[in-house]
Amino acid sequence: MNIQKPYLLFLGDAHDQLAAKVADGIKQWHPEYCVGQYRMANCHADCQLTDMDIDAAVKAGAKTLVVGVANRGGIISKEWISVLSAALEKGMDLAAGLHNKLSDVPELRALADRLGRNLFDVRHPTQQYPVASGRKRSGKRVLPVGTDCSCGKMYTALAIEKEILARGGKATFRATGQTGILISGAGVSVDAVVSDFVSGAVETLAPANEADHWDVIEGQGSLFHPSFAGVTTGLIHGAQPDALVLCHEPTRTHMRGVDYPIPDIADCMALNLKMAQLTNPDARFVGISLNTSALSDADALALMAELEVRHGLPVVDPFRQGVGAIVDKLAAL
Amino acid sequence: MNIQKPYLLFLGDAHDQLAAKVADGIKQWHPEYCVGQYRMANCHADCQLTDMDIDAAVKAGAKTLVVGVANRGGIISKEWISVLSAALEKGMDLAAGLHNKLSDVPELRALADRLGRNLFDVRHPTQQYPVASGRKRSGKRVLPVGTDCSCGKMYTALAIEKEILARGGKATFRATGQTGILISGAGVSVDAVVSDFVSGAVETLAPANEADHWDVIEGQGSLFHPSFAGVTTGLIHGAQPDALVLCHEPTRTHMRGVDYPIPDIADCMALNLKMAQLTNPDARFVGISLNTSALSDADALALMAELEVRHGLPVVDPFRQGVGAIVDKLAAL
Repeated sequence: MNIQKPYLLFLGDAHDQLAAKVADGIKQWHPEYCVGQYRMANCHADCQLTDMDIDAAVKAGAKTLVVGVANRGGIISKEWISVLSAALEKGMDLAAGLHNKLSDVPELRALADRLGRNLFDVRHPTQQYPVASGRKRSGKRVLPVGTDCSCGKMYTALAIEKEILARGGKATFRATGQTGILISGAGVSVDAVVSDFVSGAVETLAPANEADHWDVIEGQGSLFHPSFAGVTTGLIHGAQPDALVLCHEPTRTHMRGVDYPIPDIADCMALNLKMAQLTNPDARFVGISLNTSALSDADALALMAELEVRHGLPVVDPFRQGVGAIVDKLAAL
Repeated sequence: MNIQKPYLLFLGDAHDQLAAKVADGIKQWHPEYCVGQYRMANCHADCQLTDMDIDAAVKAGAKTLVVGVANRGGIISKEWISVLSAALEKGMDLAAGLHNKLSDVPELRALADRLGRNLFDVRHPTQQYPVASGRKRSGKRVLPVGTDCSCGKMYTALAIEKEILARGGKATFRATGQTGILISGAGVSVDAVVSDFVSGAVETLAPANEADHWDVIEGQGSLFHPSFAGVTTGLIHGAQPDALVLCHEPTRTHMRGVDYPIPDIADCMALNLKMAQLTNPDARFVGISLNTSALSDADALALMAELEVRHGLPVVDPFRQGVGAIVDKLAAL
């Protein structure tokens, strides 16, 4: 899945800023992908981009209109169709990561077919993947893993890619979920892949590369989440990570969506390492990445100092300090 | 997926007995499901059932023609279509577990639609499954897990179901692969389920039950297989097994299809137990099931005695001694 850039970010009728978090993510990590934003009359979000209509966006070079908004149902809204249709008419592709597909909206499907445009439904893999071979590939790979779902794995991966590139190194973020795909313009939603092919999909996503190139693979789920640990296992095995980063949200009291406790950090690291070493015996942890947004500065720093001593690894909050200390460790591998 | 019984087993143009191993499995485990077999002129297999044409099978009460044969490509052969069509015409459903689908053969699809018959493509789940809840269910569950793929998990599960039933207990084999589904007439091919829903599919397959009822869930893959461990993880978590049985083929030198070693038995049991205890903290191993078909009687017995001492668990080859010793342990839980 390779989405053409640059983008016009469609904020639609977002009822608040949080509803536009996909657009926010694209703007934050890749402002250079964004020519502008499209807001409908009743839009309550603003990504601080130039407001454009479809004609202005086309003139500014936009190749794809990206739906960067989720309404309450997470579906394509009827109110959006006229704008999406106009984008197709004027020469753009469409991309979205919602529950229902752009390509299942008959009007959009027919228009795209007639005009030869692409509809990217990034939640829904279209490619066939092989069964994983388990064979070692050249190049280096780092994978954030988590004590839970949604605890900072994508943010950490994007921050690591950015830091390596800023230092003049070679790195590619490899998206494994819909938001990451829309942010980076490529990837595969591994949780939507048929289970037999998850590891093979990740092998395909992060292929052999130059010896000093880092694939920064987006992690998913948690080995301790009773709903999704199978996805996590397949992802770890296909990734063959040389380096792991443990991601953790320290104020969470139970796993997302289920009545299960958050695992102990040492226990979580031990199991992730055990799984990772099946396909890469040299796998090791290089750091801990915390999401301390719910803590005061003082509490966050105290916790980080404590974890650093306890686990003997650099501990960062990418949002507070960046991931320099983790990238130092990667450089030393 | 619930296939109507009894069956006419279709052996087609099997080039040898091994090509009819699905039919052999159905006949072995459920002879009472089989009214007869259908063999074409050039068939080189024989399941020791009465040979019948379609009319005779219908008269004998057959409800479903089950394709119990795999040709070299594992696909539906053109030479079979006239027989399969006749079965539909005369009132039977069709079931198969091949790579291509009965329902993708236009002639069969049209005929089944017109006549209101069912086409069961058991490799391809048709049901939507929920994300797993991880909530404990009533009833007991036992799950065979393996050092590798194809090392006796299905055979062990079927033998345990049969032994519990023979003792007057309550048990249901829960198939998770195409052969098991054809043998038992129900189940879900978990390796063909979208990865997010594997654990939920197994929760659905083995629902809450009477306190003294055993679901005997067919295991898949191995936590140490680099291609399929994600499927195994999802299956273990959805199964919430009270009891685990370790299945092992002692002469195998590497994992099926990949250049990876067979894991140490103790290491394999430890990791399976760790994974199982996430969703059932009381999970424990109750025995080891060996496939010793490649060993002499003396070598097999010596190995079993050695493993019994080393692991402190009953060790059986279901084919040689049956699984009585394992069912004794289940009864004691």
